[in-house]
Amino acid sequence: MKREWDLLHTPGPTPIPPSVERSMNQPMIGHRGGKAKDLIDAIAPKLKPVFGTSGEVLVVTGSGTSSLEASVVNTTKPGEKVIVVVAGAFGDRFAQICETYELDVVRVEVPWGKAVEVAQVEEALQEHRDTKAVFLTHCETSTGVMHPVEKVAERVKSMSSALVIVDGVSSIGGAEVKMDQSGIDILVSGSQKAMMLPAGLAFLAVGAQAWSVIDENPRPRFYLDLRKYRQQLEGGQTPFTPALSLLFGLQQVLELLEEEGLDRVFERHQTMKEMTRDACRALNLPLLVSDEDASATVTSIRPESFEAEQLRKVANEEFGLILAGGQKHMKGEIFRIGHMGFCRPANVLQYIGILEIVLKRLGHEFEPGAGVAAAQAAYLERTREE
Amino acid sequence: MKREWDLLHTPGPTPIPPSVERSMNQPMIGHRGGKAKDLIDAIAPKLKPVFGTSGEVLVVTGSGTSSLEASVVNTTKPGEKVIVVVAGAFGDRFAQICETYELDVVRVEVPWGKAVEVAQVEEALQEHRDTKAVFLTHCETSTGVMHPVEKVAERVKSMSSALVIVDGVSSIGGAEVKMDQSGIDILVSGSQKAMMLPAGLAFLAVGAQAWSVIDENPRPRFYLDLRKYRQQLEGGQTPFTPALSLLFGLQQVLELLEEEGLDRVFERHQTMKEMTRDACRALNLPLLVSDEDASATVTSIRPESFEAEQLRKVANEEFGLILAGGQKHMKGEIFRIGHMGFCRPANVLQYIGILEIVLKRLGHEFEPGAGVAAAQAAYLERTREE
Repeated sequence: MKREWDLLHTPGPTPIPPSVERSMNQPMIGHRGGKAKDLIDAIAPKLKPVFGTSGEVLVVTGSGTSSLEASVVNTTKPGEKVIVVVAGAFGDRFAQICETYELDVVRVEVPWGKAVEVAQVEEALQEHRDTKAVFLTHCETSTGVMHPVEKVAERVKSMSSALVIVDGVSSIGGAEVKMDQSGIDILVSGSQKAMMLPAGLAFLAVGAQAWSVIDENPRPRFYLDLRKYRQQLEGGQTPFTPALSLLFGLQQVLELLEEEGLDRVFERHQTMKEMTRDACRALNLPLLVSDEDASATVTSIRPESFEAEQLRKVANEEFGLILAGGQKHMKGEIFRIGHMGFCRPANVLQYIGILEIVLKRLGHEFEPGAGVAAAQAAYLERTREE
Repeated sequence: MKREWDLLHTPGPTPIPPSVERSMNQPMIGHRGGKAKDLIDAIAPKLKPVFGTSGEVLVVTGSGTSSLEASVVNTTKPGEKVIVVVAGAFGDRFAQICETYELDVVRVEVPWGKAVEVAQVEEALQEHRDTKAVFLTHCETSTGVMHPVEKVAERVKSMSSALVIVDGVSSIGGAEVKMDQSGIDILVSGSQKAMMLPAGLAFLAVGAQAWSVIDENPRPRFYLDLRKYRQQLEGGQTPFTPALSLLFGLQQVLELLEEEGLDRVFERHQTMKEMTRDACRALNLPLLVSDEDASATVTSIRPESFEAEQLRKVANEEFGLILAGGQKHMKGEIFRIGHMGFCRPANVLQYIGILEIVLKRLGHEFEPGAGVAAAQAAYLERTREE
């Protein structure tokens, strides 16, 4: 079976809207010609509000990790001290990159499934006054935690001149980040999550303070040298060959976001989160993350009465419902549902309806229909006319 | 809003599978060249089992109605007597075509929402011994009734030499018709229903007795002269310019049907029907059609506590769920749900989940989640291991 009826609900990659697919299937254009310039010039201003910034958002041809690496190599020199919040697989990746580039890494360890407390970063910063940058993850995809990056940024900025660098790979496009307002210096993301595109584009929104550090930084870098991207962007160009079909798609994604309205896009993700979480509670499915720390784009469940991998297998084989498993030490412990990007409350009703059948197959105890009813109630509550 | 997240659940047109969309978007080929011949030769044998026949299935470029008209003009002479079962808008159309072509039409009228009884056709045939053909509809799309066409055909064949001509527009590809085995002489269909294609292709499966009538029939006809289609098909050709992109798509549709297996395709439609009907019962939604007469591809609901059009409006505006209204005198009286073609049990769970929210908005009384739970139970019952 080709399984084109699959229902992709991993926390990235995510489904591509048909109009975006069509946009990507355009005749190729020369990347140094006028059409490419028009494309890049059209994209640039529309990316800014998605990142909550009035500054440049650079587009690198690469996966999300290239943007993490770019944020490290452009802002730091070997031997400098940095704080990295590690609360899951992607915080750990940030730390690994920093270590690879010979930084003095102070890890603020947070248990998987919990959000960092602002006080933890504050304490680390008090202890390490020579910290040059604080790295943290907005949505920790491996657990479904959303860290209070704005609050952390405000605190860091109030007590030091350290840069605040945020991984927004699985949140940007699905959750708001007030980059400029909160003082975040660099906010990075990728294309294959709430941005509704295939993987292949990495984004870096860079603020003024970050640029002053980047401009002075002598560390060798070539492909990921952000100065090149900024300079070329001014002329509607890219320093290296851009992934044009993805840019065609990005232009359409930005039109879709504008058409719906960013506020409503973020609202929709909040609604899907609450529908999903209320349904899980009604189905006696233990949520890994507390309401306060939960992500708007991905929900993790740590089942007790059955194997997470067994649920994923049955959901996949019987309904084509593709969910994610756990990563690293949480492999087999949890399963994760992505609800971001080209995903709507109707999709939540669908996957909860399917999950109930799968849970039945696994012998899990719950009242049939209770999950869907809880999701409906959450939806109705959030869309209630005041 | 472009509304590409729409959920199309009308009884035609229906959603197009992505692989079929891709197949249609191929570079154009000459319709008299070898590639077109290969295409037509590949399609021809695979269409036969879908129509339950070992005879030719002709493909006409036209909408479904062109195949109804072709079945009339090719088999009848002015003044001949025919019986037409009229139990809805499409039975009526068959009768109108027959009247237009100056036939002596005996209408067997059946109340909308009920299936014809074999005895009714038997009586009409006894009264009208000179009947040359009996026309009837398999799935009456306007009501969601599935007529017992096989039983009617067997009875007609046992007592007369009249041809049996069946409109299978909204059933073929979703429900089995044993054309050869039951004695049906002509079985027609269109592309935009359970065949998962855009409109534009009309199909006519023609049996041996029908051909002997068609070959001798002097009635003038040109574009719809089935003899031309049969003759050209032998050489892998069509008499007139074929809708090639739709044929590209048809080839892929037939591969999808073969891949899943026709038996399983028909089973899936039965499952979706039962899920939908059980859900409606649990939600206190009055079904227009009895279990015995109900179609596998479309379900009609005649609400009492709210306006059908209001439900359609809210479902459409809030969720992009597109349902059909009633036709002719049933306009405003019923709404219809299409569950055919590129549609699976997961889609039923989704539209029932949505309908519950819409019903809540309309003040209809029911237990939240009960519809989805009933659909789940019907699914589990039908997929139970013996």
